[in-house]
Amino acid sequence: MQLLKERIKHEGIIKTDDVLKVDSFLNHQVDTALIDAIGAEFARLFSGRPINKVLTIEASGIAIAYAAARHLNVPIVFAKKAQSINLEGDVYTTRVESFTHRRIFDVIISKKYVSGDDHVLIIDDFLANGCALNGLIEMTEEAGATIEGIGIVIEKGFQQGGRTLRERGYRLESLAIIESMDPATGQIVYRS
Amino acid sequence: MQLLKERIKHEGIIKTDDVLKVDSFLNHQVDTALIDAIGAEFARLFSGRPINKVLTIEASGIAIAYAAARHLNVPIVFAKKAQSINLEGDVYTTRVESFTHRRIFDVIISKKYVSGDDHVLIIDDFLANGCALNGLIEMTEEAGATIEGIGIVIEKGFQQGGRTLRERGYRLESLAIIESMDPATGQIVYRS
Repeated sequence: MQLLKERIKHEGIIKTDDVLKVDSFLNHQVDTALIDAIGAEFARLFSGRPINKVLTIEASGIAIAYAAARHLNVPIVFAKKAQSINLEGDVYTTRVESFTHRRIFDVIISKKYVSGDDHVLIIDDFLANGCALNGLIEMTEEAGATIEGIGIVIEKGFQQGGRTLRERGYRLESLAIIESMDPATGQIVYRS
Repeated sequence: MQLLKERIKHEGIIKTDDVLKVDSFLNHQVDTALIDAIGAEFARLFSGRPINKVLTIEASGIAIAYAAARHLNVPIVFAKKAQSINLEGDVYTTRVESFTHRRIFDVIISKKYVSGDDHVLIIDDFLANGCALNGLIEMTEEAGATIEGIGIVIEKGFQQGGRTLRERGYRLESLAIIESMDPATGQIVYRS
């Protein structure tokens, strides 16, 4: 997605070999028009699939999942990172190690909202080592739901998450795949 | 907002005198069409104000803030609940006690994304005692930004948050104000 790649080039800040900041438009401040275009692109890419629900994980995935779901005309479900007193009852649970936060979260989804009848599109902002996605996949498959696809805004192609998921046979669409990035020069090379 | 009030009556679960679950459409599973209508309603209610940014707090506020911001054609900024390695640098911070989670969070906003030039609409899903909102207000005012209004989806009118904010002079618009709710009968009385 050209619009996104240009935005990353202009505003992304390469902190280290594997940390890219895009908090001016994607995951702290959120450019509503760009996210709407991203949602439309995911809806176009997965238009042939019988998706009835978009699944993501709080917090950075929510706006993107909502935008895709609005274009697909389906609800979203966002997995929660900590048990709340309002989410008691039967839940799917998994543990996710966040690359960005360098810590482990418990993640839950209420069994009421993902079931064997569901055809799910999983959405997230970043794909690095794939820990968060693997947690969502594990809970979705435990529910017996069908994963129709996985949509990622920015994939770090030099980490193993994307390759592993494609090898496992998932249809994974990343709108920008970064092959390499250099904190010294600020240069980003995309996979073509 | 009649559509919302009916949805709460049909799907809301009153757990105790002061805990209402609406996770089938608002803050776990998210009804995209309803949230879009809620966003349009906030845009209509605050249409006379020179809003250039919608501010919320992760996670449940994000989809609602995004929907309002899309109708207002402005970006959103969501305050984050924990320091991430990707959010170093100058930040506004506050501490918020969550009514739902029964614990205290550190909340941060990067100084890059809220400044004295901004005219902010603050959005959240619930207003109970007002702790989360007070944290957002404190950081916004510390930034020197103007608070043009506060939009809430569900206000628990029997807790003191809404009254206190109105007495302090903020323009607060809640789409559904619950005067009382009864866990025994399931009955909800709205403020008219």
